[in-house]
Amino acid sequence: MRCLVLGGNGFIGSHLVRALLLSGARVRILDRPGSLRGEEISGVDYLFGDFSDPSIVSEALIDVDVVAHLVSTTVPGSASADPIADISGNLIGSVKFLEQMRSSGVRRIVYLSSGGTVYGNTDAQSLREDSPTDPISSYGTVKLAVEKYLGVYASQYGIRATVLRVSNPYGPNSRHIGLQGIIPTFFSRLIDKQPIRIWGTGDNIRDYIYISDLSSAILKSIEQDKPGVYNVGSGTGISIKEIIEIVTDVSGIEPQIEHLPDRPFDVKRVVLDVSKFSQTFDWNPTVELRDGCRMYWHWLKGPG
Amino acid sequence: MRCLVLGGNGFIGSHLVRALLLSGARVRILDRPGSLRGEEISGVDYLFGDFSDPSIVSEALIDVDVVAHLVSTTVPGSASADPIADISGNLIGSVKFLEQMRSSGVRRIVYLSSGGTVYGNTDAQSLREDSPTDPISSYGTVKLAVEKYLGVYASQYGIRATVLRVSNPYGPNSRHIGLQGIIPTFFSRLIDKQPIRIWGTGDNIRDYIYISDLSSAILKSIEQDKPGVYNVGSGTGISIKEIIEIVTDVSGIEPQIEHLPDRPFDVKRVVLDVSKFSQTFDWNPTVELRDGCRMYWHWLKGPG
Repeated sequence: MRCLVLGGNGFIGSHLVRALLLSGARVRILDRPGSLRGEEISGVDYLFGDFSDPSIVSEALIDVDVVAHLVSTTVPGSASADPIADISGNLIGSVKFLEQMRSSGVRRIVYLSSGGTVYGNTDAQSLREDSPTDPISSYGTVKLAVEKYLGVYASQYGIRATVLRVSNPYGPNSRHIGLQGIIPTFFSRLIDKQPIRIWGTGDNIRDYIYISDLSSAILKSIEQDKPGVYNVGSGTGISIKEIIEIVTDVSGIEPQIEHLPDRPFDVKRVVLDVSKFSQTFDWNPTVELRDGCRMYWHWLKGPG
Repeated sequence: MRCLVLGGNGFIGSHLVRALLLSGARVRILDRPGSLRGEEISGVDYLFGDFSDPSIVSEALIDVDVVAHLVSTTVPGSASADPIADISGNLIGSVKFLEQMRSSGVRRIVYLSSGGTVYGNTDAQSLREDSPTDPISSYGTVKLAVEKYLGVYASQYGIRATVLRVSNPYGPNSRHIGLQGIIPTFFSRLIDKQPIRIWGTGDNIRDYIYISDLSSAILKSIEQDKPGVYNVGSGTGISIKEIIEIVTDVSGIEPQIEHLPDRPFDVKRVVLDVSKFSQTFDWNPTVELRDGCRMYWHWLKGPG
């Protein structure tokens, strides 16, 4: 099987690519120029360019069986600051990519959507895939719109799309420290002896997934052709305050806390019901949050 | 009350503007250059330009209490042929407009969404506002994405949005004959002695609303500040075949029928449950389909 990974040099992509290689798949990466950190991985076919550029994409799609679309040109904060750029980069970019898939005859795509933002604010204890989707951020709206376009291309052109609504991944190779991911940001601020910043009360609840659990989930959804929309997360809700306790405990460093006002695009509570994905793909998350934080902390501190 | 009508020179807009004037509202129209047919209506303030152009929009929003957004730069067929243009024209255009509302302090908007396309294919006898929304067309996806952005601007910036998911309107002043609206297209082809074209079997079911019923519904949603998402239609499902019977009967002309293949972006069945709008706004459709077709036919034939 040959898999094209859009955004294969990023945090999630780097883990997925290694998991794909171990599974025996052939891997091509299309990512932005300058996205590669370190050496090229042997056996991987690298292309650099914009995922919405027809000339590079038509080359990237040659002989591909399935695409893993991990690209986002924004994070929630930057999307909120410039929703037009969010739509142009991510929605128009993805639809242009789908047009290329359609004309090149590649029929399968796995798309990483956002379990943390597509549902919006809700009182639900746990969110199912058929829960209402009323995002309160541009980021979540664009993710949802890409999902809906995948449905259009499925219905009209026979594209087979697996949408993964992923919770908050953390672990080695995290990028965008300070922008993306509370756990990487907290740990790195501890290392840098900076205060940990909390927007709001610290009672906001999220679902965190260790990167190896996420990459194994994506791998399964690539290997098994079972289109649909699926939540992928730990299924467990943790407050920001609990994260701080764990981070303090794991690192042995007592953090300074800096309280900032609530951000209007942050939802209060997101816990994903992952039973649909779990049952369909025979997958379960295996890394407990405290263990994952410990592994991540050891990786951050490096050898010695 | 001063109302800005985006697309006020179009089919629906022309009826809404007259209803607004009768109600005592002050009306400003912003529409494309060249959109005005006939004379300017006395007492209406006209502006011509693009609804996403900040310079004209900032002028258009001065002293406005509520906006009626009736603009679409596409119809389902053209949106399917060029989804990028659909996203750029309608989604980016609407978000740019919302940014202007936000900065100008105008807080209320009534948006005309599409009851016929946002739900997609479904077995439901009748669609409620909380039915799943899985559009099979770009047109429906973009309408839904605009709805979701209205929710984002409501949540983050206090914009109060009333979304009307409208069924298929028909009646005097219909434009885009052949592109938009089966009833206007069928009647005009009869007049032109052209065959009536049917895509698919003719069993597809739609919900049709006479234009005066629709404009009275929009007027109520402008007058009463009750944000939310509402279906607006007749609540009755009619097949294409039944429409042909009525059109034949009303016109007294036996049509030639030309059968064409199904279009992939046409849904099979859409009947709207309009009880939420009906109860919230004390509104009911009053014009039966056969009566509406008769009135429309008389208008089309003109005096004498």
